[in-house]
Amino acid sequence: MNFCSQCGHPVHQAIPDGDDRLRDVCSFCGTIHYSNPVIVAGTLPVQGSRVLLCQRAIEPGYGLWTLPAGFMENGETTVEAALRETREEAGAQVQNAMLYTVLDIPRFNNVYMIFRSELEGDFSAGTESLDVALFDEKDIPWDQIAFETVRRTLKLFFEDRVHGHFPLHQDVIR
Amino acid sequence: MNFCSQCGHPVHQAIPDGDDRLRDVCSFCGTIHYSNPVIVAGTLPVQGSRVLLCQRAIEPGYGLWTLPAGFMENGETTVEAALRETREEAGAQVQNAMLYTVLDIPRFNNVYMIFRSELEGDFSAGTESLDVALFDEKDIPWDQIAFETVRRTLKLFFEDRVHGHFPLHQDVIR
Repeated sequence: MNFCSQCGHPVHQAIPDGDDRLRDVCSFCGTIHYSNPVIVAGTLPVQGSRVLLCQRAIEPGYGLWTLPAGFMENGETTVEAALRETREEAGAQVQNAMLYTVLDIPRFNNVYMIFRSELEGDFSAGTESLDVALFDEKDIPWDQIAFETVRRTLKLFFEDRVHGHFPLHQDVIR
Repeated sequence: MNFCSQCGHPVHQAIPDGDDRLRDVCSFCGTIHYSNPVIVAGTLPVQGSRVLLCQRAIEPGYGLWTLPAGFMENGETTVEAALRETREEAGAQVQNAMLYTVLDIPRFNNVYMIFRSELEGDFSAGTESLDVALFDEKDIPWDQIAFETVRRTLKLFFEDRVHGHFPLHQDVIR
């Protein structure tokens, strides 16, 4: 950040009164500009023995496989964000979405929230996907998974499925 | 937002190519400025039969009671944010923090994440608290609770405690 989004004057870094960390502070109007982690919401769509993955048509990870997920928007809930991303990226409807993994990535200031869900009916690649397909565990392209959050969520799902118990998993990716 | 934080020129509202909602876009350099929900992380500190509450020394809700919680900062994890807020507002250390409630407030673009935890040792009011105290269920000041997220979390905790089972609760506050 170089300029104040309120008044357009330059900002400088300072620790405001009563605070304990550096913020971008406007040198003219004094507005303090905060920056906070962003939620990435998505789903793990399941149909029978198979899970749905999307092949990315955009960077980062062009050509690699991922779960449908993206930045949560203002005015929506975490579940609504996850379902919207699933519609947009996979052309898919899901139901019974249950929060399954909460994965912090402090290095990127992201918190992933992935909802295990039941895939309903058909699907088709959205503009951000090259392809969308269903995979049995043995066919998952483990060396072509786009993100560690996705890899971790898939691993946990196949482990939990053995016992049919799917507790919430919270972890940190360093 | 009135001005571009990158170059200082005015922004206007527009739907960028490939997007489907209005964003603040710089009229000069074209930077698209996104705004996303913020996580409020906190704890429900438990000691024996009692829970810890903080009496707020700041608005909103000056003089009302709350759980220690606040905005998650860049570079930290959700648990780290919850523990930091607990130290800052209640002078308290907790352990075994387990994610307990995830409460969306889409009207305010907040997602509350409250961790049930065990209070360790002593506590004392931080600068944002007038007082910090332990309450048995019968003594909770229900008509002086600062936020619906806190009320909801406390209600769920006392209900779950009857059976000794504390699953994750996810809900939306409209």
